[in-house]
Amino acid sequence: MAPAHRHSAQAVRFIIEGHKTYSTVQGDKVYLERGDFLINPPGYWHDHGSEGDSPAMWLDGLDLPITNYLDASFFDHDESEVQEVTAVVDGSVMKYGIGQLRPAWEAPCKQYSPIFTYKWKTTEQALNNLAKVDASPFDDVALEYTNPHTGRPVMDTMTAWIQMIRPGIHTKAHRQVNSAVYYVHEGCGATIIDGIRFDWEKGDIFFIPCWVYHEHLNDSKDERAILFSIQDTPILVVLGKYREEELSSNRGHQLVKGVFDAETVMAHK
Amino acid sequence: MAPAHRHSAQAVRFIIEGHKTYSTVQGDKVYLERGDFLINPPGYWHDHGSEGDSPAMWLDGLDLPITNYLDASFFDHDESEVQEVTAVVDGSVMKYGIGQLRPAWEAPCKQYSPIFTYKWKTTEQALNNLAKVDASPFDDVALEYTNPHTGRPVMDTMTAWIQMIRPGIHTKAHRQVNSAVYYVHEGCGATIIDGIRFDWEKGDIFFIPCWVYHEHLNDSKDERAILFSIQDTPILVVLGKYREEELSSNRGHQLVKGVFDAETVMAHK
Amino acid sequence: MAPAHRHSAQAVRFIIEGHKTYSTVQGDKVYLERGDFLINPPGYWHDHGSEGDSPAMWLDGLDLPITNYLDASFFDHDESEVQEVTAVVDGSVMKYGIGQLRPAWEAPCKQYSPIFTYKWKTTEQALNNLAKVDASPFDDVALEYTNPHTGRPVMDTMTAWIQMIRPGIHTKAHRQVNSAVYYVHEGCGATIIDGIRFDWEKGDIFFIPCWVYHEHLNDSKDERAILFSIQDTPILVVLGKYREEELSSNRGHQLVKGVFDAETVMAHK
Amino acid sequence: MAPAHRHSAQAVRFIIEGHKTYSTVQGDKVYLERGDFLINPPGYWHDHGSEGDSPAMWLDGLDLPITNYLDASFFDHDESEVQEVTAVVDGSVMKYGIGQLRPAWEAPCKQYSPIFTYKWKTTEQALNNLAKVDASPFDDVALEYTNPHTGRPVMDTMTAWIQMIRPGIHTKAHRQVNSAVYYVHEGCGATIIDGIRFDWEKGDIFFIPCWVYHEHLNDSKDERAILFSIQDTPILVVLGKYREEELSSNRGHQLVKGVFDAETVMAHK
Repeated sequence: MAPAHRHSAQAVRFIIEGHKTYSTVQGDKVYLERGDFLINPPGYWHDHGSEGDSPAMWLDGLDLPITNYLDASFFDHDESEVQEVTAVVDGSVMKYGIGQLRPAWEAPCKQYSPIFTYKWKTTEQALNNLAKVDASPFDDVALEYTNPHTGRPVMDTMTAWIQMIRPGIHTKAHRQVNSAVYYVHEGCGATIIDGIRFDWEKGDIFFIPCWVYHEHLNDSKDERAILFSIQDTPILVVLGKYREEELSSNRGHQLVKGVFDAETVMAHK
Repeated sequence: MAPAHRHSAQAVRFIIEGHKTYSTVQGDKVYLERGDFLINPPGYWHDHGSEGDSPAMWLDGLDLPITNYLDASFFDHDESEVQEVTAVVDGSVMKYGIGQLRPAWEAPCKQYSPIFTYKWKTTEQALNNLAKVDASPFDDVALEYTNPHTGRPVMDTMTAWIQMIRPGIHTKAHRQVNSAVYYVHEGCGATIIDGIRFDWEKGDIFFIPCWVYHEHLNDSKDERAILFSIQDTPILVVLGKYREEELSSNRGHQLVKGVFDAETVMAHK
Repeated sequence: MAPAHRHSAQAVRFIIEGHKTYSTVQGDKVYLERGDFLINPPGYWHDHGSEGDSPAMWLDGLDLPITNYLDASFFDHDESEVQEVTAVVDGSVMKYGIGQLRPAWEAPCKQYSPIFTYKWKTTEQALNNLAKVDASPFDDVALEYTNPHTGRPVMDTMTAWIQMIRPGIHTKAHRQVNSAVYYVHEGCGATIIDGIRFDWEKGDIFFIPCWVYHEHLNDSKDERAILFSIQDTPILVVLGKYREEELSSNRGHQLVKGVFDAETVMAHK
Repeated sequence: MAPAHRHSAQAVRFIIEGHKTYSTVQGDKVYLERGDFLINPPGYWHDHGSEGDSPAMWLDGLDLPITNYLDASFFDHDESEVQEVTAVVDGSVMKYGIGQLRPAWEAPCKQYSPIFTYKWKTTEQALNNLAKVDASPFDDVALEYTNPHTGRPVMDTMTAWIQMIRPGIHTKAHRQVNSAVYYVHEGCGATIIDGIRFDWEKGDIFFIPCWVYHEHLNDSKDERAILFSIQDTPILVVLGKYREEELSSNRGHQLVKGVFDAETVMAHK
């Protein structure tokens, strides 16, 4: 059990495994399930714990580097270890989870998303629906988690994407002034980053640095790949630093200069 | 079949009955089902028709009075009677229908909601979810249809609500500088407007004028009532004219001075 | 002396003559001088009076028609006839009158302009400066009074312009979905509205209706003309109704079908 | 002569000395005078030079640290060394320099301020005017340079202030999550930073770090002190990291623990 605390750092979480494990953000308790996406706005109290036998695992994205760089880190412990929980489990999903319908008597939540948990079931449905009608040439079936009361990213310093690379898809290359950490939620495939091919499979984590060309591919004949990512795009946009560029040569595909071999790298260390 | 046309008036529709009836807005075709809510932004081409045997019926809300008042009405006919339809039926719902997840490669739709149809199934689920966690003292379980890319109402001149008055609920009275047209989608109940009780049941339409106290009640023991309404609130808000006030006397309830008798009124005419 | 009152209607004033005459808006007293422009946001207390011998005269623009149309008119009298005045006369000009420099410890005034009076001396300087570098083909040297804390018009329902038509200028024609009331502050010239030429001189008032072509001209060899106008553009813009169009035929000039003769019109009445 | 170039870094300049020295930003040439404040938005071409005999001097504020931290630095040289100048010297001041009056035919400049130079004469007038009506308990007569088309700071990553500490004033202490570089433009005084007194006089530069208490004082009986500063507040605000706190103890004044001695520090080095 992690006792209740709060901090000025902004945090998002993607659940890898969850069994009777819970997280409570500002009194809103939710049982964590594989694929759920959680937000933790700055200054909101939170505590986590497990009521089951097996461990939970999640990917935690915090903006600590820039918070520390700006000398803006604050942290508080609560006297009580566990927050009092509001009546209904997963109340924020019940109240706000269908983004386009807002409780009519309340003002919009302009600062941070009122949805504390984006459930996997809904997310998967959105991916499947989108795949029927449209896709990006660079990122295939890609969705950004947003605050439906403003349309903006869920955090001021980070945004998060869920992405389906469909079987047989090989996207075109582009580059942006922002960086991204990717987690492979399902399937396998590869990402070519600055001319090097990185093969990945379920459970892997990879990173795309700032301003390097990258493209994704799924060689499988019938298995989809699902990628979750955390990106620092909002910082670059609001500070007037963002730009992007698509690769114009070679029909939009990089020349592959090499293949990354994780085992060799590991062996050398 | 209504041939394709477009106009500067803003329009919303609530489907009362639909059987193999369709509407196509800017190439996005949808089959109309009871309880669906449709938007028709200004200048968007639209045509409607029926491929079945029985008629469709819907409530149409247009902002023609203020458009005419402002001398701002424009209207065009298309040369072709029926628009070409984009590949997938109800494509806007597939692409944007889970409001908090946005296609990551596109800019937000800031002017008008990208969701052309708010399906009843989703709307009903949102009402049921909200009823589990919260309600307004004045409007019970009330949701506003919004553009999830901005959080704003679906039109510049009108907003629309869907509202569940739960069995046994009697709300408190308040008044606002805006007016509303209500349609009873399900159940029966009453609204007390300026001291007069108006009983209503499924299929009825009633109107709440500007700045009069009103409160809703559902006398039923177990049947919910569902109200759809179109309100001109956005005009008042953006022009700096909106205000609201709750009734402070008599514990928030009006003294009932009389009961409206529709049959007598009809007979007199 | 006009005793203190306030109303939901929005008001702007342009001073035609002022001699020891004052206006006090929300405690900010100002002595009125020819060419000054005043705003009176809704709900702000105001009272006016004269400490001299000769009368003052101003053009008053109120949004009463749309306020009444929307059933949104509220009015209060103050118990005291004259407001208490804050220490410094014309304090809002002292504090905010150089729009691009804002008191650093205060939040911006987002609702209405913090500048209650736009002094003629500053306005004239802005016109002379602008004339040295740029002008509109349709409106010559035209400035819009704005709230420097947002860049928006001074009122939600009205905007105001000050305009110099330089000697020898004949602008091109265009039309917009908005209407305008013009007051001739200086000089003489003509405006061709929907093909009819209206000659005007200092002190005249004329009106340009919605969606009719209009162009301005100053026949004088060396005397500038100054026009003040109140326009309802903000309503049209925020309600999604605004459009504009320039005249494409005849090199952008209307064919003049006739000349308006005010005396004949008067004689007939 | 500095040849024409542009970069993604954002820059502001405060002129310490200028004699027939010029700066041209995106074709807008201005002769630099003591006290002028210049902005250089990212990606705008600029070149500088001197047509006189004596050197110019200015304080240059660039956001290079955070630009480099974010890997977002881009730089271009122009083929021509000197930009072509638009017709009128200091055109941006002529066109936009009275912030509350905007050329009526143009859309607002939402990204960066259209005023490239904030002239000292206007700035000084604003300080003198403000001093007559109001002041901050923490910063005395303090003005923020803004974009009058939005009310926002002139840069995305930096804001700039001009501040008059009047004779005899000793402000209260507060602290903020942001830092500031100060330049003493006129007069002398002291700033107590984290309990240490730093005396300063015309030409000095001092720095207030993040989240330390600070207060300003002017011991002079009749000479004003003028401080110019560059602050990184906008970064903290848009990234959700800003907070501030006033000192509650000792009537808002710090206990002075020591006095900074610049000469001893210099001697030691």
